[in-house]
Amino acid sequence: MRATKCILQSASKTLDKYALFVPKTGVFPKGYEVASLASGVKKNNALDLGIIRNVNKSRKSSAAAVFTTNRFKAAPVQFSRKVLDATSGEGIDAIVVNSGCANAVTGELGLQDAGKVATQVNELIGEKNSTLLMSTGVIGQRLQMDKITGGIQTLFGQNKFSSDFDSWLKLAKSICTTDTFPKLISAKFSLSDGTEYTLVGISKGAGMICPNMATLLGFIVTDLPIKSSALQTMLTGAVTRSFNCISVDGDMSTNDTICMLANGAVDTPVIDESSSDFKKVSSQVTEFSKQLAQLVVRDGEGATKFVTVNVKNSAEFKDARTIAETIANSMLVKSALYGQDANWGRILCAIGYSKLGNYESLDESKINVSFIATDNSTPRELKLIANGVPQLDIDESRASEILSLSDLEVLVDLGTGSEDCQFWTCDLSHEYVTINGDYRS
Amino acid sequence: MRATKCILQSASKTLDKYALFVPKTGVFPKGYEVASLASGVKKNNALDLGIIRNVNKSRKSSAAAVFTTNRFKAAPVQFSRKVLDATSGEGIDAIVVNSGCANAVTGELGLQDAGKVATQVNELIGEKNSTLLMSTGVIGQRLQMDKITGGIQTLFGQNKFSSDFDSWLKLAKSICTTDTFPKLISAKFSLSDGTEYTLVGISKGAGMICPNMATLLGFIVTDLPIKSSALQTMLTGAVTRSFNCISVDGDMSTNDTICMLANGAVDTPVIDESSSDFKKVSSQVTEFSKQLAQLVVRDGEGATKFVTVNVKNSAEFKDARTIAETIANSMLVKSALYGQDANWGRILCAIGYSKLGNYESLDESKINVSFIATDNSTPRELKLIANGVPQLDIDESRASEILSLSDLEVLVDLGTGSEDCQFWTCDLSHEYVTINGDYRS
Repeated sequence: MRATKCILQSASKTLDKYALFVPKTGVFPKGYEVASLASGVKKNNALDLGIIRNVNKSRKSSAAAVFTTNRFKAAPVQFSRKVLDATSGEGIDAIVVNSGCANAVTGELGLQDAGKVATQVNELIGEKNSTLLMSTGVIGQRLQMDKITGGIQTLFGQNKFSSDFDSWLKLAKSICTTDTFPKLISAKFSLSDGTEYTLVGISKGAGMICPNMATLLGFIVTDLPIKSSALQTMLTGAVTRSFNCISVDGDMSTNDTICMLANGAVDTPVIDESSSDFKKVSSQVTEFSKQLAQLVVRDGEGATKFVTVNVKNSAEFKDARTIAETIANSMLVKSALYGQDANWGRILCAIGYSKLGNYESLDESKINVSFIATDNSTPRELKLIANGVPQLDIDESRASEILSLSDLEVLVDLGTGSEDCQFWTCDLSHEYVTINGDYRS
Repeated sequence: MRATKCILQSASKTLDKYALFVPKTGVFPKGYEVASLASGVKKNNALDLGIIRNVNKSRKSSAAAVFTTNRFKAAPVQFSRKVLDATSGEGIDAIVVNSGCANAVTGELGLQDAGKVATQVNELIGEKNSTLLMSTGVIGQRLQMDKITGGIQTLFGQNKFSSDFDSWLKLAKSICTTDTFPKLISAKFSLSDGTEYTLVGISKGAGMICPNMATLLGFIVTDLPIKSSALQTMLTGAVTRSFNCISVDGDMSTNDTICMLANGAVDTPVIDESSSDFKKVSSQVTEFSKQLAQLVVRDGEGATKFVTVNVKNSAEFKDARTIAETIANSMLVKSALYGQDANWGRILCAIGYSKLGNYESLDESKINVSFIATDNSTPRELKLIANGVPQLDIDESRASEILSLSDLEVLVDLGTGSEDCQFWTCDLSHEYVTINGDYRS
């Protein structure tokens, strides 16, 4: 017990996450412009309203989205779902994002507010049914419509739109709540004919200001030409392996939304699911989504560690994911990681109570569990359980070294198949309890 | 933010739980004797080995048990399951409990150790297949067989058995690990003919010493004459409404065991499921089990609050339970309770992501959520959500008063049926993180 206080204090040493994870430059897809401002909803003149618009009208843009499965869906989620259903995801040319108010649990009036915001933007861009909405912030409060509509008027009236790095970074900032850094990534990729396309991604979470809940928002924008149905397939696949494989505290919000726009501003043939390049694009987008999703975990409330839970060789992917998620959400495992305690018993315990679809994915006598160092130190792998048998001669000092890293991996090899799932989580710290035990302010 | 530190500190003020929850006297069923000692497995000469034996041989005793559904079942769980299967729960006359070592993840050798302990006791009481085992403590370590068998020899050789209050209380202490108080309750009940019977119950948890996990152990002993099959039905029903309705951190152990013995030392006709008194006995045992289970939550690690989550008027009991459990396990809800934050958004959010069997149990427009004071202050009920609509004029000072209680209720009325579930949990405190982030010591 004596050593604890000192360990827990050293675990709390904070990384300079802004310096580590916020880029200083980027590449951006053709044909998009963004703008943001402080509408006054948030205090302290902080950015809280942003718009991304497609200005390339050479062909119809495609959109796809994945929404929260929480039964209580916020108004912007319900509204955007309807727009996508009505348009089959074609011709979506704007996304409005706002922070400070989630427009959740606001009933029929909240839905009407959402409709008015979208109508205003549709009129300003001269289209119909072309605008999606994303909101995050306090729930149970209505949007301050005067501030939101006034802000939108200013963005268009004073033409604040631009496509430079600073504007994209400001957009990323405008959806932050208690995030400690904005989440923006971008990348180029090329397909078989050598043409280059660009991806930009923005996400936020998992922070909160009471009385509300963590909201995960993310969007990915590209100049690739792709059919909306293929885009939806691609996004759903990418989210399954990225945003659905992260957890800070296991609480699923009413507002979670990941959406993707593709305007086809690069003038190459339109891709669909039968295209030879579809698989390649999908895999690019999946990797990109993973990076974007990981940033959310890196900014997890109170987190001192970024932990990859890697469940390998499962009979089914779904079960690998369930096991990884169960480990990642275990308060006991997360507390042990925070305290840098090589407590493999808790990991095994969590594996054992995972609610699997197919119990053939799990065979006690085949399980291997290790800690993996992510720096260049050796031995990289420290085996804790081999074929179901606890290793009695574990090198405790090496365990302490690995657990003191701010980035580490828990490897679980089930040995029952060939499906893998990587899941990303953070530890449970005193700071988490302080943040979430706080009075609404 | 400023007020937080002070609130969180005042929340940490500890109750004198030993004075509040440990009885000074008790009533005990006829025909049972108990003994316990410090075998040396635990440090500091703490009690760590106990035996309960039935000495009433006028008729065969009945036994029933409910075990963890964790896939990795500890050796004592596997062993006891086999004994009950082989005997159909008839003629079980001893339970051996030990703390300090859970005999979990110990493979074939651990099972052999369990068998040796049971054989030793069976021989000492002159029976076969009559002994059940319960263990709690460190996992991945084998039982120190010399200390355990030596201890058992002493208990019988020096006839340490007795049926007085002190002996029962010592037995309750002998299964404690990081419990802050022993959990012992007893009660008398009578059936239609006026005959009196007695129930005694002991439980432990949810504490842990690394590297291990919380273990929940409990047993209930009575002098009622009842068929073992009826006893099993009764215990399963009672556990569904008691031990399966509590949660400290949502982690399910490898060792969880609740068992019940009934020796029929009161000389009345044997009860079975068709007896007119069966329902009455069952309801007595269920209420008794609830009290015993609640003590575990009251001793939850780091807990500053005892919270009843009462989900009423559900279309199905299972869904009421799932919703109650989801609220009770939400790290966000638990942190808010600790911080005394009237954060109903998090409660609604947890309801919304509960994984229900029948979504007709949930209708947003019918939900009512309230905080309920459990002292005599008024108004007793503070409504937060009425028919799905957040109450905008919530009396924040009354909310603070209710949330400052060490015992309070969250009431969720689903309005979709007539099934109710009460679930008991505690808050998530800094102390929880400290305890579970601690180095194994």
